[in-house]
This record gives sequence, C-alpha cells and structure tokens, in this order.
Amino acid sequence: MKPPENITTIEQMEADNAMLKQNACAVCAETYDDRVKAQSPHCKFGEGGICCKNCSMGPCRITAKAPRGICGADAHAIAARNYLRSVAAGTSSHSDHAREILHVLRNASPEGNYKIRDEQKLLSLAKEWEVPTEGRDIYDIARDVADIGLMEFGKPEGTQRFVSRATPERQKVWAEQGILPRAIDREVVTAMHMTHMGNTADAEFLVRQGLRTSIANGWGGSMLGTEVTDILFGTPTVRTTEGNLGVLEKDMVNIVVHGHDPVFSEMVVTAAEVKELTDYAKTKGAKGINIVGLCCTANEVAMRHGVRMAGNFLQQENAILTGVVEMMCVDIQCIFPALPQLAECFHTKFVTSSPIARIPGATHIEFKPETAFQQAKDIVKMAVDNYQNREASKVCIPPSKKNAVVGYPTEQIIKHLDGVTNSHVDELGSYKPAIDAIKAGVLRGAVAIVGCNNPRVRPDYSHFEIMKELLQNDILIVATGCAAQVATKAGLLNYDAKYYCGAGLRRVCELVHIPPILHMGACVDISRMMLLATGIAKDWGVDTTQIPVVGCAPEWMSEKAVSIANYVVSTGLDVYLGIEPQVSGSAQMMELITEGTRKITGAGYIINTDPHELVKNILAGIEAKRTALGI
Amino acid sequence: MKPPENITTIEQMEADNAMLKQNACAVCAETYDDRVKAQSPHCKFGEGGICCKNCSMGPCRITAKAPRGICGADAHAIAARNYLRSVAAGTSSHSDHAREILHVLRNASPEGNYKIRDEQKLLSLAKEWEVPTEGRDIYDIARDVADIGLMEFGKPEGTQRFVSRATPERQKVWAEQGILPRAIDREVVTAMHMTHMGNTADAEFLVRQGLRTSIANGWGGSMLGTEVTDILFGTPTVRTTEGNLGVLEKDMVNIVVHGHDPVFSEMVVTAAEVKELTDYAKTKGAKGINIVGLCCTANEVAMRHGVRMAGNFLQQENAILTGVVEMMCVDIQCIFPALPQLAECFHTKFVTSSPIARIPGATHIEFKPETAFQQAKDIVKMAVDNYQNREASKVCIPPSKKNAVVGYPTEQIIKHLDGVTNSHVDELGSYKPAIDAIKAGVLRGAVAIVGCNNPRVRPDYSHFEIMKELLQNDILIVATGCAAQVATKAGLLNYDAKYYCGAGLRRVCELVHIPPILHMGACVDISRMMLLATGIAKDWGVDTTQIPVVGCAPEWMSEKAVSIANYVVSTGLDVYLGIEPQVSGSAQMMELITEGTRKITGAGYIINTDPHELVKNILAGIEAKRTALGI
Repeated sequence: MKPPENITTIEQMEADNAMLKQNACAVCAETYDDRVKAQSPHCKFGEGGICCKNCSMGPCRITAKAPRGICGADAHAIAARNYLRSVAAGTSSHSDHAREILHVLRNASPEGNYKIRDEQKLLSLAKEWEVPTEGRDIYDIARDVADIGLMEFGKPEGTQRFVSRATPERQKVWAEQGILPRAIDREVVTAMHMTHMGNTADAEFLVRQGLRTSIANGWGGSMLGTEVTDILFGTPTVRTTEGNLGVLEKDMVNIVVHGHDPVFSEMVVTAAEVKELTDYAKTKGAKGINIVGLCCTANEVAMRHGVRMAGNFLQQENAILTGVVEMMCVDIQCIFPALPQLAECFHTKFVTSSPIARIPGATHIEFKPETAFQQAKDIVKMAVDNYQNREASKVCIPPSKKNAVVGYPTEQIIKHLDGVTNSHVDELGSYKPAIDAIKAGVLRGAVAIVGCNNPRVRPDYSHFEIMKELLQNDILIVATGCAAQVATKAGLLNYDAKYYCGAGLRRVCELVHIPPILHMGACVDISRMMLLATGIAKDWGVDTTQIPVVGCAPEWMSEKAVSIANYVVSTGLDVYLGIEPQVSGSAQMMELITEGTRKITGAGYIINTDPHELVKNILAGIEAKRTALGI
Repeated sequence: MKPPENITTIEQMEADNAMLKQNACAVCAETYDDRVKAQSPHCKFGEGGICCKNCSMGPCRITAKAPRGICGADAHAIAARNYLRSVAAGTSSHSDHAREILHVLRNASPEGNYKIRDEQKLLSLAKEWEVPTEGRDIYDIARDVADIGLMEFGKPEGTQRFVSRATPERQKVWAEQGILPRAIDREVVTAMHMTHMGNTADAEFLVRQGLRTSIANGWGGSMLGTEVTDILFGTPTVRTTEGNLGVLEKDMVNIVVHGHDPVFSEMVVTAAEVKELTDYAKTKGAKGINIVGLCCTANEVAMRHGVRMAGNFLQQENAILTGVVEMMCVDIQCIFPALPQLAECFHTKFVTSSPIARIPGATHIEFKPETAFQQAKDIVKMAVDNYQNREASKVCIPPSKKNAVVGYPTEQIIKHLDGVTNSHVDELGSYKPAIDAIKAGVLRGAVAIVGCNNPRVRPDYSHFEIMKELLQNDILIVATGCAAQVATKAGLLNYDAKYYCGAGLRRVCELVHIPPILHMGACVDISRMMLLATGIAKDWGVDTTQIPVVGCAPEWMSEKAVSIANYVVSTGLDVYLGIEPQVSGSAQMMELITEGTRKITGAGYIINTDPHELVKNILAGIEAKRTALGI
C-alpha cells in the first residue's frame, strides 16, 4: 500500500467541514447539522413506518395498546403502504426526469438548442424498437424514437419495452410473479390507489406492487433517462477530472450546477465556455469562469465534459459557505430548501430553473428548451456580474481535492475488456474477461455502491470504510451518485487506488487499465448497472441472481433510493443497506423486505448499520453466490 | 311541517348503533369506536400536516424550536407536500377506478359479460370525440371511444378532453393559470415528483399542482368513470328504493356489496336474480336472496337497479353486526381492513375481488371481466350455502329504514325541468326553469353535499343538521356518496321531505315533482355535479364561480375527498368543510386553501367544524353570490 497521504481521509473531510462551519457561525448561518440536532430525537412512529396519515379520521399510530388504526389497518398494512408510497415517489422522480429529456429529444433539431450527439446510440435504440432508419434523417428517427419512449409512460396496454433486455430467466420471473410493469405512470397511480384508505391492507401485495413499480423505474423511466441523455449529450467516455470543494477557484467566477437533469446543466456548461462570456468575466477582474458540479448533476457533467465536482449531497451548503460561489443554479431533486436563506448570508445568487422545484427565496428563471442557450448565457452573465459582490472576509476554500477518472458506462467497460481479449480466441464486445477473472477468483465479485449520504450516520464514513474494505478483498466496485463522489473526494477513483486493493483486483486494474472503482454516473444511471449485471449474467449463461454481484447503499436517504433498491432486488441482486428502511415497526414488513422478496425475485435486503459488519455480510453473500456457482 | 316521526333522527340512528354495539360486545368484537378511543388523542404534528416522512434523514416535525426539517423545508413546504400527496392519491383512486371501467368497455361485446346499455350516451360521447358512428356497429364505436378514453391517462401531449365541457370563462382561467391538466397519470406523477425530497418547497406551487391534479380527476378520471359506467350499465333514472340497516332481511340470504366499482357489483346483482339461484336459496330454507349495497357501491346499484342501501361508510361494521349477512363482497376503496376479523365473529363470509384491495383474512376471488358472470354466480351460491350457518342467537336487525327516491343524474334533472317548461315559449333541455326560480328567489341557490362520514365528529350529525337547515332556507340540495345516504337513512330523499323545506323550495319540489335532496350518485359522480353547475352557468350566461351554487363536505375523510374539494374549487365553486384539512400547522397553507386559491380559480374553502355555523357561512356565501349577480 502507498502511504495514506494519497487518500483524503474522512477525518480530513471533517476538518474541512469544521472550517466551513466556522464560516457559517461567523455569519450566523444555520446548516444541516444544526437542524439535525433540533430534529433529534426523531419520531419513533415515523421511523418505524407505523404512523398513517392517509385519511383524516387519523392520523393513527400503532402501539401495543392501539394495535390498529381507526379503519383497522395494522402495523404491517401501514408500514407497507408508507413504503409503497416511497417507491411511487421515487419512481415518479426518476421517470418524470426521463420524460422531460424525451420531450427535449422529441424537439431536437440541427438548428435548435439541443442536438443529437450520439447518433450510434440513437440508431441502436431505433433498431431495438423497430423504427425504420434506412435513408432517414437522424432527427426524424429521433422524433419517432421519442414518441415511442414517451408512450412507455402512458400506453394503455402492454409492458415496458426494456424488460426484454433482461435475462430470459428474469423476464420469466417477472411474468410469473405478476410484476412485469405496465406503463410507468400507471404503476405509480396503481400504487397510490392501492395505498388509499380502504384498499390493500395485505403487506405482501403492497410489497409486490413496490417491486412492479420499481421495475417501471429501473427498466423503464431511469433506463429511458439514461439512454436518451446519452443520445442527446453523448455517451460518457473515460476522462479525468477533480473532486471536492478545492475545485472552487479563488480568482474565478464560480458557478455551481446542482441537481439531476442535465438538460439545464449542459447548457450552462456550454454557455460558460463562450468566449464573449469568459472575456466578460475578465473585464470584471476574474481569471475566467469556473463551472463545478454538485450532487448528481456533477456526475452528469463530469462524465461528459470533465467538469469538476464540488461534492455530494451533504456538501451543498458547504459550497456556499466557501464564500466564493457567485451562483448556484439548480434543476431538480435533492436540493435543500435551506439554500436560498444560506445564500443570502453570502453574495451567492441562488437560481431555480424548473417548475418541479420551486423554492421560496430563489431567483426563478424557468428554463425552456427552445430558449435554453440564451437563457444559459444570461444566467452565466448574471453570475459574472455578481463576482464584484464577493466579500473577501468571508472567503474560505478548503484546499482538498483529488484527481478522479470518471465515465464508465457499460460501453466503456466493454471497450476496456476488449483491450484484454485475445481476439483470435474470443469474441470482442463481451464481459468474458471479467467473468474469467471472477471464475478464477482473481476478482471475488463486484459491488455496486450507490446512494445518498445521510446525517443519520457519520456522513461519508460508511461509504469510505466499505469501499476500502471491499477493495482489499478483491471486490471490484462500480459506483454512482453521491457514493461515487465519496470515492472521488477520497481519491479512490484513480489508477493509483490500485495500491489499496488486494493483489487480485490490483492485477485486474493494471491489466485492464482501470481504477478499482468505476464511476458509472448519476443515480438515474443505476440502470447502467442493471445492464452491466445483465450483460455479465448473459455472457456467463446464468441469471442475474446467480452472479457474485450485489448492490450496496450505505447511506441512502431519498425515496428514489427506495425505488432503486426495489428494482435492484427485482433484478435478482441482493441489496446491502446501511440505513434501515422505515418499516421496522412491522415484523412482517421486515421479513418481507429481507426474506419475503427472495421468494419472488430471488433477492432481498441485508441491513446492517455497522459498515464493517455490512462488509462482512457482503463478502459472505458474494462467497455464497460463488459457492452456488461452483467456483 | 309534518311530525318528526317521518324522519329518522340522529338519536334514533345512534340507538340502532348502540344496539349493534351490544351485539359486538357479546362476541367480544372490536368496532371502529373502540379504535377511535385507542387512537385518541391524535398526533398534533400529523393533524397539523407538519410532519414529513418523505426521506430517511427524517422523519422531521416542525416545532417552535425546530422550525425547519433537516433539509430546510419549513412548515409550509411540509404541509403543502403532504396535502398535494393526498390530492395525488385521491386522483389516483377515482381515475384508476375509471380506467378499469374503460378497459371493460374496450372489451364489451354482445356475447360477453358486459354489454352496452346506454347506446345514446355512447353515441353522444363518440360525437363529442369525433369518432365516426355512421353505419358502424355499436361495439366497434365503443372500442374506439374506449381507446380514446384510455389515452386520457397517458397521452404524451395535450390536455384533458372534458375540459372543453366547462364554461368558456373557466377554460380561460385554467389556461391562464397554467392548471389545465395534461394526461391524468402524468399529473399524479408530477405531484409525486414535486413532493420528493429536494424539489418544490414553495407552498403556492404545490397548491397549484393540487388544483391541476384535481382537475385531471374531476374533469378527467371521475368524469370518464361516470360516463363509461353509464354507457355500460345504463344512465340512472329516478327510482324508489329503501335505505338503512332495516333493509337486511331476517329470512333471506343477505349479500352486502360494498366498495365503489360497479363492474363487480353489477354482476353480483344480476347473478342474484338468476332463478336457479333464488330457487337454490329456497332449497336452503331462505325466502330468497336479498342484495343490499353499502358505501358508494350502494349508490351505484340503487340508482340503476333500485337495490336497497344498507348504509354508508361508518355502517360497514354495523351490517356485519346484525348477524344476518351471509356474505359481504367488496371491490375497492373505503373498505375497513377490520372487516375480515369482525366477520369471523359471525358466520359472514368476507370476499375481496380486486387486486387493488387485498385484505388479510379475506376470501379472495379475483374478478375477471371475461368470467364475471360465472364468478358472480359462484359467489352468490357461496353466500346461499352459508345461510345455514347463521346463528339465531346473534341476529339483531335494527328495524330502521326509509323510502328513498334516487337517481338524478343531469339527464334526469333536465327531464324534470322540461316538465315545467312552456315549450311554446322556451326551449326544452335547459336549466332555465331552475335559473328562473333562483332569480326569482323562490330558490336561494343550491348546495352539493358530498363526502364521507368521520368519527372525528358525531357521525352523520353534521350532514343531517346542515341538510335540514338548508332545506328550511330554500336551498335545493344535490347529494352523492355517504352524504346522500345520510339523507336516505333520515328519510329526506322522499317527496314528503318537502314538508321540511321553506315555502319556496317546497313549491319547487311540488311543481317539478322532486324530493328536495336529489341523489346524484357515488363519490365518483361528483363529476355530474360539475356538469350540473356548468350547465346552469352556461344557460345563465355566466361562469360557474358566479352562480349561487356551492359544495359542502361536512364530514369528509378520504384523500379522494381532498382531490374532489380541489376540483370543485378549481371549477370556481366554494367548498364548505366541516373537517379541517390537515395543514393547520402552516399559516401560509391555511391562507392558501381559504383565500389563496380565490386568486387562481375564484373559489376557496370555508372551514367551520360547527355545522350550524357552517350553515350560516353557506347562506352568507350564497346570498353574496346573489347580490353580486344583482338578484
């Protein structure tokens, strides 16, 4: 192993946070940790999922003395209903995001603000959906593909098209279990209907609808989102960037793009490169314009443009606390409503852009695809104009940042594997080299580490500990979302991170020339992971549930994460959780999510709030899969 | 006024309940009032709407010391998000119900289980939607109409077709305010997305999305449900029936149909009339088969078949407690999960039929349109077979029942008005006679009384008091749902109820030959009320918000009611609520729902938990509308 100075430890990250907290105190600004203290302890009924607010006879709460709500719903029904509504909200979020992007594709044109950057991916999807391509203009094809994609949300008959990408065994499981998803929006509405007062009170059927609704996300909305984002903005390729708050520049106009939907951030990134604006920034005394990303938007623009990443979910306030952010502009999801108030303590302009995410105190500039580029330029100019308002006394940029290699969608993974394939013996375009490494035991397996961070636990710590230990145990990691950014900040997204790996994984990293943690994108891109696992399973000749590949969400927080966890389980992959789903007030629900789903999909949750214990669980789970495969 | 013995008073209803409660105690059965006691007092955070469970950083609750959740969401954002999710769930429920019926229409055939009973209504809808009808088979037309209807749930572009039925002024308001609803399911998904962690925190925009989502219900899903139900099962006509638990028969096989979706209950009603089964019942010692309805299913089958109504929402346990119910078979919505356990204390078989409403302990017979009639016959036979298990010692049927005249969809109201129209002077098919009566002051106005009942208040009491007082004040009442059934039980759905009216209303009732409370159907049929108000406004030459017609939900309970209240307000009609919406923890939300929406739609809520005060509010509101109209 190389010495620890090559890694940014959690302790160092915490020292940075503490420095910024002083900056907050200096301006009497509140941050999330203050609110965590004020909100502690949390309501035990809510934590256990056994409080029902689904009608105005209540709210009702389950206790030993009141084992049923007024209607007669018990703890199991209530917890399951709350859980299903979370899946519905998570599915809605990812899918609605995808729908917006499909509408942009629908209206893309060579003269417009949005063009097609990956024609090959479009043609491939057109072929999959039997859209004629021969001799046709690419934008006409795009329109037809978008129309079909948009119908996935609302078609009155039929099931999701992308389920045909799953292994045949998986498709059979979904069909036999009655969880093949129909139109995406319909599954959400069914979930909301089932959880309405006086409908389903049988937890098992609510869990089943959760699986179905989640597949409409992972193999519907999210997968559509990822595909179409690649078509419009280019399929990511491997590139080097940097991450952590140190990417903010003292002498440049700093603009933070935050949120999830690249339709907005792509334009801002492009606008910031316009010479007229960079020149304008110089007239204002800045050395230029520095766009950095935050949360999943960071992942999107890092993978496609190498834009540097300021941090993950719980760093959104920290970015403003540096005092050097001229503007934070946001699109949708995971945006603290606390930000406008915080921004007011500094010179930072806080701009919202989406009707989905209106926040009091923000400057709202509703972003329209038809005027996107001009709007983006106006926004960037507004940030430049704000540079002069920066107050030197409030500036405090923690110096920490690390190099990171990002951009490993399945296409790039295959490309790297092709590099180690003997094309005289084996076919190219296959996961076989990876499978061979797993079979040989050089790699023990792979873990997809995903999800948010969460102040319920020591932020980032679980991610970091789990990643380190898995690498030492020859487990390849693929990561997305805020999890991927913990690896970025820590310095684990580097080729050098091989020195933190076991001998087998290290050898694989050297041979294939990859870092031991592959950055696969934003949280919507967990669909890429489903395709990765499916590709491996297909090339192996087994079902996804058999391969030594699992998911892990050490610090998940959002309802999107609940939906994701459900579709990963639906895909046959176990999910290891470091935060307990809020159903613990129902023994039946705890059984259903950990064991019950195994009878339906072959997978379930393993929950352990101790990251070191969770690693042990993961390793045992992977070894059990290996044993079952006879390897 | 006639002597009070012609009315069943609330005190008499309560005496019946007390008698049945003794029956419950005798078998150690729990009923809702026991659970109300156990659940009291309710959580103040939940009641105020200021508890947030939308991510696993929380749950968070707003207090003076913790004015924001961990993300920074304040009381207003949290209450508004919870409120919007209620609208989303309510819209989902009504609309999903409608979708199921559209699928049945899609597959209707002359040889099948489901036929078209109202060809005229189908042809009229086909014309409205520009479906060719000339020389075509009615079932082909039905298929085309169903296909268009089904697309209203998921079409990628465009807004709801039925909004073109609203007044031109109303359509303009909706367009200008940006609340014209797109596809029904899309509005639900947008609502779920906006309320996801890190999205909209501005209460006003959440309230606006609530209005839009609700219009997708009232002028989308619910209206589709009502139209297609009429096409399939016949548009209701005026008929006489009876209501209250006294309709259960001591010497017959009693089957209670309970829920909302007539696709199931229609078949059970038809099956129970099959001679083979009534003969079979006689072989078992019964005098026949007695089908009675409960909750909104009662309204559906009463209006189309004169099936007698056993009671409303809070009587569902009472029906079983009579000890004479051989079977309670349910479809969807408002079904107490407590029922199977209660049924086990008696001989009652409890049968669920829908995948939307699975309840532990029930016998589940999944109802399929293609085998509906045979399944219904099997179910009825099962009930007959259960007759012999009735235990005489447990029998206790309260004798109360009243005659009721039901079945006043807009078509029937127009027909009655035509009867008093001088066709030499005025056109037929108009609301003009009603308008003239209002203008003359003979009628002061009309109130739509709707909604559930709710043990938060003295059940049925508010309905009863409000109805009596409004009638005395020359206010015509239209009623649906559980509210209509209070009138049924009380005896106010009779021609004789004119004796409880003021002189003006009494004269109108006599002239037009109607009871003073017109039964318009189930809760999904509140869409009929929107068309009634719209018809009156159009014939008056004003917008719906100008006419002296308002809505009132004295004891609403469900999320459907929240969605309904929103679409009534969206339609420009004030809504008077006897139960406070659970947003009182946010002053901004209280302002938004009572005053804020007035700036958007011209209407809002008036909330008063004292029914007598609420009547004063209603009368003042109606008189203010009259004054503004110069009448």
